[in-house]
Amino acid sequence: MPGNSFGTLFKFMTFGESHGPGIGVIIDGVPPNIPLTEEDIQFDLDRRKPGQSDITTPRKEEDKVEILSGVFDGKTTGVPIALLIRNKDQHSKDYSAIENTFRPGHADYTYQMKYGIRDHRGGGRSSGRETACRVAAGAIAKKILKKHNIEVVAFTKQVGSIKGNTFDYSEIEKNNVRAADPVAAQKMIECIHEYKERGDSIGGIVECHINGCFPGLGEPLYDKLDAVLSHALMSIGTIKGIAFGAGFDVATMSGYENNDKYIMTDGKVSSETNYSGGITGGLSNGENITLQLAVKPPSSITKEQKSVTKDGSNTTIQVHGRHDPCICPRVIPVAEAMCAVTMADMLLLHKAYH
Amino acid sequence: MPGNSFGTLFKFMTFGESHGPGIGVIIDGVPPNIPLTEEDIQFDLDRRKPGQSDITTPRKEEDKVEILSGVFDGKTTGVPIALLIRNKDQHSKDYSAIENTFRPGHADYTYQMKYGIRDHRGGGRSSGRETACRVAAGAIAKKILKKHNIEVVAFTKQVGSIKGNTFDYSEIEKNNVRAADPVAAQKMIECIHEYKERGDSIGGIVECHINGCFPGLGEPLYDKLDAVLSHALMSIGTIKGIAFGAGFDVATMSGYENNDKYIMTDGKVSSETNYSGGITGGLSNGENITLQLAVKPPSSITKEQKSVTKDGSNTTIQVHGRHDPCICPRVIPVAEAMCAVTMADMLLLHKAYH
Amino acid sequence: MPGNSFGTLFKFMTFGESHGPGIGVIIDGVPPNIPLTEEDIQFDLDRRKPGQSDITTPRKEEDKVEILSGVFDGKTTGVPIALLIRNKDQHSKDYSAIENTFRPGHADYTYQMKYGIRDHRGGGRSSGRETACRVAAGAIAKKILKKHNIEVVAFTKQVGSIKGNTFDYSEIEKNNVRAADPVAAQKMIECIHEYKERGDSIGGIVECHINGCFPGLGEPLYDKLDAVLSHALMSIGTIKGIAFGAGFDVATMSGYENNDKYIMTDGKVSSETNYSGGITGGLSNGENITLQLAVKPPSSITKEQKSVTKDGSNTTIQVHGRHDPCICPRVIPVAEAMCAVTMADMLLLHKAYH
Amino acid sequence: MPGNSFGTLFKFMTFGESHGPGIGVIIDGVPPNIPLTEEDIQFDLDRRKPGQSDITTPRKEEDKVEILSGVFDGKTTGVPIALLIRNKDQHSKDYSAIENTFRPGHADYTYQMKYGIRDHRGGGRSSGRETACRVAAGAIAKKILKKHNIEVVAFTKQVGSIKGNTFDYSEIEKNNVRAADPVAAQKMIECIHEYKERGDSIGGIVECHINGCFPGLGEPLYDKLDAVLSHALMSIGTIKGIAFGAGFDVATMSGYENNDKYIMTDGKVSSETNYSGGITGGLSNGENITLQLAVKPPSSITKEQKSVTKDGSNTTIQVHGRHDPCICPRVIPVAEAMCAVTMADMLLLHKAYH
Repeated sequence: MPGNSFGTLFKFMTFGESHGPGIGVIIDGVPPNIPLTEEDIQFDLDRRKPGQSDITTPRKEEDKVEILSGVFDGKTTGVPIALLIRNKDQHSKDYSAIENTFRPGHADYTYQMKYGIRDHRGGGRSSGRETACRVAAGAIAKKILKKHNIEVVAFTKQVGSIKGNTFDYSEIEKNNVRAADPVAAQKMIECIHEYKERGDSIGGIVECHINGCFPGLGEPLYDKLDAVLSHALMSIGTIKGIAFGAGFDVATMSGYENNDKYIMTDGKVSSETNYSGGITGGLSNGENITLQLAVKPPSSITKEQKSVTKDGSNTTIQVHGRHDPCICPRVIPVAEAMCAVTMADMLLLHKAYH
Repeated sequence: MPGNSFGTLFKFMTFGESHGPGIGVIIDGVPPNIPLTEEDIQFDLDRRKPGQSDITTPRKEEDKVEILSGVFDGKTTGVPIALLIRNKDQHSKDYSAIENTFRPGHADYTYQMKYGIRDHRGGGRSSGRETACRVAAGAIAKKILKKHNIEVVAFTKQVGSIKGNTFDYSEIEKNNVRAADPVAAQKMIECIHEYKERGDSIGGIVECHINGCFPGLGEPLYDKLDAVLSHALMSIGTIKGIAFGAGFDVATMSGYENNDKYIMTDGKVSSETNYSGGITGGLSNGENITLQLAVKPPSSITKEQKSVTKDGSNTTIQVHGRHDPCICPRVIPVAEAMCAVTMADMLLLHKAYH
Repeated sequence: MPGNSFGTLFKFMTFGESHGPGIGVIIDGVPPNIPLTEEDIQFDLDRRKPGQSDITTPRKEEDKVEILSGVFDGKTTGVPIALLIRNKDQHSKDYSAIENTFRPGHADYTYQMKYGIRDHRGGGRSSGRETACRVAAGAIAKKILKKHNIEVVAFTKQVGSIKGNTFDYSEIEKNNVRAADPVAAQKMIECIHEYKERGDSIGGIVECHINGCFPGLGEPLYDKLDAVLSHALMSIGTIKGIAFGAGFDVATMSGYENNDKYIMTDGKVSSETNYSGGITGGLSNGENITLQLAVKPPSSITKEQKSVTKDGSNTTIQVHGRHDPCICPRVIPVAEAMCAVTMADMLLLHKAYH
Repeated sequence: MPGNSFGTLFKFMTFGESHGPGIGVIIDGVPPNIPLTEEDIQFDLDRRKPGQSDITTPRKEEDKVEILSGVFDGKTTGVPIALLIRNKDQHSKDYSAIENTFRPGHADYTYQMKYGIRDHRGGGRSSGRETACRVAAGAIAKKILKKHNIEVVAFTKQVGSIKGNTFDYSEIEKNNVRAADPVAAQKMIECIHEYKERGDSIGGIVECHINGCFPGLGEPLYDKLDAVLSHALMSIGTIKGIAFGAGFDVATMSGYENNDKYIMTDGKVSSETNYSGGITGGLSNGENITLQLAVKPPSSITKEQKSVTKDGSNTTIQVHGRHDPCICPRVIPVAEAMCAVTMADMLLLHKAYH
């Protein structure tokens, strides 16, 4: 607290507004002697950046990252790594209309009420632009996880009412919506186009897998692995729900159905099913960790909506500017990043006691 | 971290195993001069305690709380409040069978893997018994919230496939399942009896409302109100999912549908709908905060299940002892408590800056 | 924060007032599988308890500790260890005189101003009685340190103007003032008796050594080893100053004198002198860590002193009750404990990154 | 932890090495609506920067600060404030000699042992250059304190054996050594020149005053005001001791002497003396807070010294480059800053509960 840092041992703090000079992050707690270059970080930033395809916002930000500290001779030194991304393609004039009118679904009203002042340009601090910093921190976390053979993968599971049925990791980066089912992917993209053409937007579901984690990660009672992952992922502005394994389906399951029975496999304890989503009693159990995220439809739409002004009069608003009709494909690297920073933090914590 | 404390300014740490001498909690950060008695705390403890009705475990624990510090002349003094609950009705012999066999769905295996040692009696630290300490801390948090007219209410929304349809707070404590719909309540109770008779258990959904909160609570970016509530609630052992407002339904909603349009009502900003669940951009927006929890079916069932031993052999297990066939009614005070401690913490944080 | 917990990975929270039902501590973050009994803890508690000799307060507290959790089959299990010490020998009536008059040197006035309410009996939370909880936590920390061959020793270096000159660890527990110089010890004891007879008290200096620590412990920049040790030790009520190695003598030293020159000794880097007190750049350097503490004379004296009442009138006060004429001998186990908990915390932190 | 952030509610994280692209800080928890410009920050940075006079290092760094976020229309917005200072005048070649030889008194050896890798150029992260970030954060903290009429002043009390005797705040910025006694100041400057000419350096004592603080600030037991101030100030690389009020003189004082007797003055509680240094029981008592810091002589000297190489051979070293012969005048803004950030943090904490 006060809210702009995350983590205990792998710990980062971020800054920056959508239309200020730039955004950035300091990451503290990165173990020394890990090879790290700007390219390592740029890879995931490019997966998140705007303007990737015709189903994302056309804002053109290169999101070019500069390493300001913490790396020497191509390796981390154990001291803080600072990353800076300058803002380039701000169209602040687009936002003058919203200086005095609160956009429905956005944080304009709540920030005004909390702080009594806000940088209204592009949403200021509450803009999704901040997520680039999460992605940058996540790229470094992924390098730590890789040393322990832990891998994070996310993909679009559903857009509107279109669900992915088949499942192939290698398909994810081949389609613009980042679905793991190539057939459903095309239908999802069509669906997004339809909403875009109407000046509207559409929600979806993103699924994350964390594979390769050994049993025992997590810190009960209050920092259970699922609790801290929920904290991390629910802190992404666009996420309204999270569920592990069988998720809300547990409501209609019996204990006998839901219990993942243990069975010895190749001399190791495993389970016949994975309704738990890889976490039992708040600790990783050795199965793949699986979770789903409810992704709300972007709030910025050109359709006219009712709203109110700062002075308290009823009015209407059309949100212009350059926006995403469905945020799932761009949320994916952000969700991966938040999984990665959490897992890296929990991994370091676990190591402390062993 | 390391996991047994929660909160920043309203902060507590808990201890205790199911079959040890007792359990307890220290609560630090309670503002001074709040009237507080053991009865204030006992009220919610009695709502959580075992043996309340024929759909809860018959273990007989009075859960009598003793205040050890922090209260003088019936008022809080601003110093830590320690609460102790002695264990009484342990049947440790019931658990000798599980010393060497991991119960499916329970934390036996994962604790063994994390710590290399565990108090197997009644699940030790991983037992649901620990939630009494949450409830005790929550009772104090509720007193702080009450001074700011914030109220927390939870109820059973669904058991198996039976859903509540009507909604009346005054019904909740009148039925054993704590549903807000008295008609559905009876069906839920019947459903629970059916599973109990089969030696099985059943899941459900609990809904929480936090009413009366002014706009602006929460600490973006990473301690958004929904993020910290998720952390708090997902740390309850039996919860597998959480969703705010429209929750997972956002997947199929358009932005136009999902955006809560602002409208002036009695000179105040309000919104026509509350799909957001009372939180926008991670800050309370003045509407009621609403969230749903996926409650898994209790893992302790008498039906025979496959499992493995500590030594790595396949076996089967029947979990005897005294268990709940559906945990929803007893999760309710726990969920309320975790909402309350989180809101109290965020309230104190908010005050610091204003 | 809010002040009653300490540490990040080896973390404890304490509670209790001088004249309430009892005092206690929860210690979280103790690694599993460490043998632990109540006797291990009682040993240091007995070194701190009142009534040890004729130069300590005659209050008779057994300070009998009860382990409430976290130990199973004689070993730590990795979950929180709660310790409870019941208060026995309170003479609350002795304190009725101070309900309305602030004792000079004590926290009566400042607690009243901060909280607007206070448990005046025996100083309530501000009583030195709380240090028993530090000692109990420290006893467990020492067991962790011992596994890494780190040892903490403290002794009385000075009482009034009498300084220890010779230095022998084995002498410390043989004299009531816990000096490392047996000849000076007798003079110190005489000095204390003189002040006691006058109804007055006397200050001193305590020295701590932390021996056996490998190079590299500490977390720069802000959690340098000397910074966190200072935090820990200055949180003891009676300490007014701390200095490492040459301490305040550095003011008159030149860089050439003060720099500890490196020299290879038995194939290892060592230094010819240890003016740094074993810490360079905030990290342990492999030499013994040495620090001195300024211990103020106890504030409770029977001599009549000027003071003011709660209502704001000038008055005089004589502090009766049972008090220590010099706190050095009883501060020693407390100072050791605070060194130990800090070192254990820094050790676990260090391990996380290695 | 892991060491590069400080504070709970007024919280900052810093980054940067002496010879990297730059250094900087993110400050989170600054209340909204405080006027803030780069000039506000630059003022104190200029007091710390190198090359101010002929008794400081001749390295020429402008230390020009850029605000990257958190300020809109000249006011803070409640979101993180990021500050960047680019490095300009690095002479990295000066340091090639120390790549393989550890400088006595510096952190070269301990960083190498902790991290197994280090940026040796100019001391890398362990360079005093990092203190510019503390000063920048402190400048913002001072603006918060000013609103509550709390002021921080530091000055050089002693250099070598030359002590200030008179005391006048208005003299401090008029002499290069920043003493409050103008006569002693000239002698101190001469003394520093003597050591400089010998290729050596000299230590000193800096005194800090925190004036205007109301009674009740601090969070006992473990975050007593003196404990957190000690943490903050001892984290400055060059400080080896800290003492409040009478400091180490308490060793020879009796309780009767040392107790600050209360007396009503103009209808307010005050004390006849201030041996406590303005803090009783860990809480501010309304008197001025006074503390002294032991400042070690700078380790970088041109005199030849014994040392060892990375490979473990004995050798000698002369430290060239551009260095300070006495760091007191440049430590002053740093000490003020660390007092200010601590007081701002404790002030916000206190407000949370009131």
